[in-house]
Amino acid sequence: MNFHFTKMEGAGNDYIYVDEFKEPIPENIKSALTQKLSNRHYGIGSDGVIFIKPSKAADVEMEMYNADGTPGGMCGNGLRCVGKYVYDRSLVKEKTFTLESSGEMKKVEVIQTNPDGSAKMLKVDMGAPILDADRIPVTHAKTRPFEGEQAVIDEPIEVQGKTYRMTCVSMGNPHAVVFVEETDSLPLAAIGLHFEHHAWFPKRTNTEFVQVLNEEHVKMRVWERGIGETMACGTGCCATAVACILNHKTGNKVQVDVLGGRILVEWDREKNTVYMTGPAEEVFSGIINIKL
Amino acid sequence: MNFHFTKMEGAGNDYIYVDEFKEPIPENIKSALTQKLSNRHYGIGSDGVIFIKPSKAADVEMEMYNADGTPGGMCGNGLRCVGKYVYDRSLVKEKTFTLESSGEMKKVEVIQTNPDGSAKMLKVDMGAPILDADRIPVTHAKTRPFEGEQAVIDEPIEVQGKTYRMTCVSMGNPHAVVFVEETDSLPLAAIGLHFEHHAWFPKRTNTEFVQVLNEEHVKMRVWERGIGETMACGTGCCATAVACILNHKTGNKVQVDVLGGRILVEWDREKNTVYMTGPAEEVFSGIINIKL
Repeated sequence: MNFHFTKMEGAGNDYIYVDEFKEPIPENIKSALTQKLSNRHYGIGSDGVIFIKPSKAADVEMEMYNADGTPGGMCGNGLRCVGKYVYDRSLVKEKTFTLESSGEMKKVEVIQTNPDGSAKMLKVDMGAPILDADRIPVTHAKTRPFEGEQAVIDEPIEVQGKTYRMTCVSMGNPHAVVFVEETDSLPLAAIGLHFEHHAWFPKRTNTEFVQVLNEEHVKMRVWERGIGETMACGTGCCATAVACILNHKTGNKVQVDVLGGRILVEWDREKNTVYMTGPAEEVFSGIINIKL
Repeated sequence: MNFHFTKMEGAGNDYIYVDEFKEPIPENIKSALTQKLSNRHYGIGSDGVIFIKPSKAADVEMEMYNADGTPGGMCGNGLRCVGKYVYDRSLVKEKTFTLESSGEMKKVEVIQTNPDGSAKMLKVDMGAPILDADRIPVTHAKTRPFEGEQAVIDEPIEVQGKTYRMTCVSMGNPHAVVFVEETDSLPLAAIGLHFEHHAWFPKRTNTEFVQVLNEEHVKMRVWERGIGETMACGTGCCATAVACILNHKTGNKVQVDVLGGRILVEWDREKNTVYMTGPAEEVFSGIINIKL
């Protein structure tokens, strides 16, 4: 079976995009298809696959699967790339439009274009961060009341015999944010999986390790559930900024440097919404023949 | 600049193939182009790029570059994939044809086809193994006369404070073959680079770590110079078989299991030539826009 695809990346977070406007894909093969396409030696290679399709409620819908074939929920870098994809192909008519992802509606804005008119930088309204422990979900950690929610802010967690302090945030998917002295020497491969599968996270967790450079600039490395370390994670950047702000480490605008690039996050406290701004690039497109 | 490409793999050794019959590429951009295309996050991702082009002396010529942009010399898995590429596209008319690589002529034979008539298994005459230390090249190691050459067979080499015993073979590129008790637990990432850059190898070396299962079957993991650990290395499988035979560990036909698959190697002692048989697969094809 021949599939058309487009490879895109946002700050080094690379996904394969399949256009269901042109070529609808049966739901029951998406998981297996994703595993095959994402394999970096025998497939195209990616952090996962994002299916772009018509939406009844929004201008367009995206459906994300992780490289291991599990449904991925929200994907911040993916939102920007889908935004670029549909803008560049005139599947939307304006620079501001709506994307449906995991049943939620996101507003996307093309804020900078390339000389050829294609989208370069995009800003996504990621909505309100969820701090309530039950909704993230995280169990057992000590909670404190914060603006009506029972939040986990700067609480201890033991992983592999070492105690870390974490702040938990959901941006549609669960994140544990941990501040560290410096990220470069961090043995992420040795600890990431133990955070992901820690008993306190019923739906596993993404984990962000954050080094604060100054009040508006941090460095971050991320372990994504179902994937491992990645070059970037959009929702992880948002969760990182929210945790920085909650812990009084930065102001409300934070530049988050990840391995793959730079993401700007602003938490508008009045509207209680998080804006994420970053690049999106189309890398290549092609055809693959897959036997499922 | 738009480039057409085809991604292929032979036993998990994955290269990007660029067809210069259709689209000639200036020599002076091939190194930079390879680095961009081979990047697994911002490019297509591969162990390197192989350019397929017309040859005056043979039916077709291949030119290989490693992922780091260095010219790659001989590439056994690449020979099979190029063989499949030109056979499937009728750039050659017969099942047996000649390929020029690094100035050498190789005979390739399609020995098994898929139901659609495309090539599945290919056999390549890799020529005579070079055992002469000066020609491999390897210096300082103790040599012994072997069929007119000064060979390095089962000699000690110290790497990172540990003494290994190696047998050196060139199949157009240098290989150090080291026998180990078992390959699964081998900390290849920690030692591979130290073999590659050891002072005794003026042109660096590929290193094969080999576990003998029985007289016709071995397991091997390989560290390729300029790349790191790979799923497979065709010339490395040939060098492995030659070293097994020289050290009386196997007979003249050896099945070499690598991470990415299975390669059959036969050293015909009368003709003094090594035959390598293995699979080749086309994974996908596409178009990429690259700014150099």
